[in-house]
Amino acid sequence: MQDLIDELGRLPGVGPKSAQRIAFHLLQSDAVDVQRLTDALTQVKAKVRFCVICHNIAESEQCRICADPRRDLTSICVVEEPKDVVAIERTREFRGRYHVLGGAISPIDGIGPDDLTFRELMTRLASGEVTEIIIATDPNLEGEATASYLARFLKGMGIKITRLASGLPVGGDLEYADEVTLGRAFEGRRLLDA
Amino acid sequence: MQDLIDELGRLPGVGPKSAQRIAFHLLQSDAVDVQRLTDALTQVKAKVRFCVICHNIAESEQCRICADPRRDLTSICVVEEPKDVVAIERTREFRGRYHVLGGAISPIDGIGPDDLTFRELMTRLASGEVTEIIIATDPNLEGEATASYLARFLKGMGIKITRLASGLPVGGDLEYADEVTLGRAFEGRRLLDA
Repeated sequence: MQDLIDELGRLPGVGPKSAQRIAFHLLQSDAVDVQRLTDALTQVKAKVRFCVICHNIAESEQCRICADPRRDLTSICVVEEPKDVVAIERTREFRGRYHVLGGAISPIDGIGPDDLTFRELMTRLASGEVTEIIIATDPNLEGEATASYLARFLKGMGIKITRLASGLPVGGDLEYADEVTLGRAFEGRRLLDA
Repeated sequence: MQDLIDELGRLPGVGPKSAQRIAFHLLQSDAVDVQRLTDALTQVKAKVRFCVICHNIAESEQCRICADPRRDLTSICVVEEPKDVVAIERTREFRGRYHVLGGAISPIDGIGPDDLTFRELMTRLASGEVTEIIIATDPNLEGEATASYLARFLKGMGIKITRLASGLPVGGDLEYADEVTLGRAFEGRRLLDA
C-alpha cells in the first residue's frame, strides 16, 4: 500500500494526502475498474509516441494533424509542448501544422537549443512550402528567449515570422491587468478601422 | 448601530457580515480614529471633483495630469473610469493625456452615448493638436462596443485611432489562456524582427 501511495505522490499535482486518498479509493474499487486503469497506463506507454514530422504525441508514425491532408502546409505554429497544441486546436483559429520543440531554452535548467527540435524544424523548412512561422512559445521569460532565438535562427530564409500577441485577456477589466501586461497591450496597440 | 451596519452593507464588496464586523470594530475604536474617517469622507465629497478637461477625478479645476505641462498634447488615451487612469499610469508606458468617458455603452443598463463624455472629447479635438486616440476601454462586451462606436464617431477626422492589444497575459502559460484570448492572440500576431 505504501508503495502505491509513494508512486501516486510522484505524479504532478498529487501531494501525500491526495495520494493516500486515491490509494484508498482504488483499494475499495472493483477489480475490473483498477484493471481498466492499469490497461490504460500500459497502453499509453506502449502506443503513444512522437510524430516523426512535428514531434507532437501520436498514435502512429504521424500525428493526427500531420496526417490530415486538409491542414495547410504553408504555415507552421511552433509550440513548446504537446499540451500547447491541444490549447491552440481548441481555438479553431489555426488551420496549419505544428512543430513541438519539446520545451524552451532555459540555461538555469541546462536546456539549450540542441536539446530542442530546432534542427528538425530546419529540415521541414527545406522543402520551401512554408511561408509563415508562428511562434507560440509561452509568454514568460524562457518562452520569450526561445522566440528570440528562433527568430534569429530563421532570419534570412524569406519566411514571415510572427509571434502571438501579448495583451489584455478578453472579457476582463483593464484595472485588473498587471502592469507588464498592460504595458505590452499599449506597446502592441493596433490600428482600428471603423 | 443597525443603521451603520446597513449603510456599510451598501458599499461595494461589503456583505452583511463584513458590515457587522466593521461596525463593531468602529465601536471599539478610539473616537479620534473614527473622527479621522468621517473627516476623510467629508473631505472627499467636498474637495474631489471632475477635471474640466478630461473628466478624471481632480482636486482642483484640472486634474494632476491635464495640469502637467510635460504631458504630450498629441495623444489622448480614452478610458471608461478614473481607476483605469491609475492602472495605465502605473505602467509608465504612456506620456499623453486621458479622456474619461464615465462608463461604457450598455443598452441593458440604459447607458447610451449621450450619457458618456463623447461630446466633450469632440470639443477637445477641435484644436487639431491631437494626432492619436488610443482606445483603452475594457476588453469585454461593453468596452468593445464602446470602442467600435468611438472609432466610427472619430472616423474621417484624420486622427490615428488605435486599440490596446488583446492577447496573452505576460508571464503566464499558453495552456492556461482561455480559448477566446488565445484566438485573439493568434489573430493579433505580430511580425518578429530578429
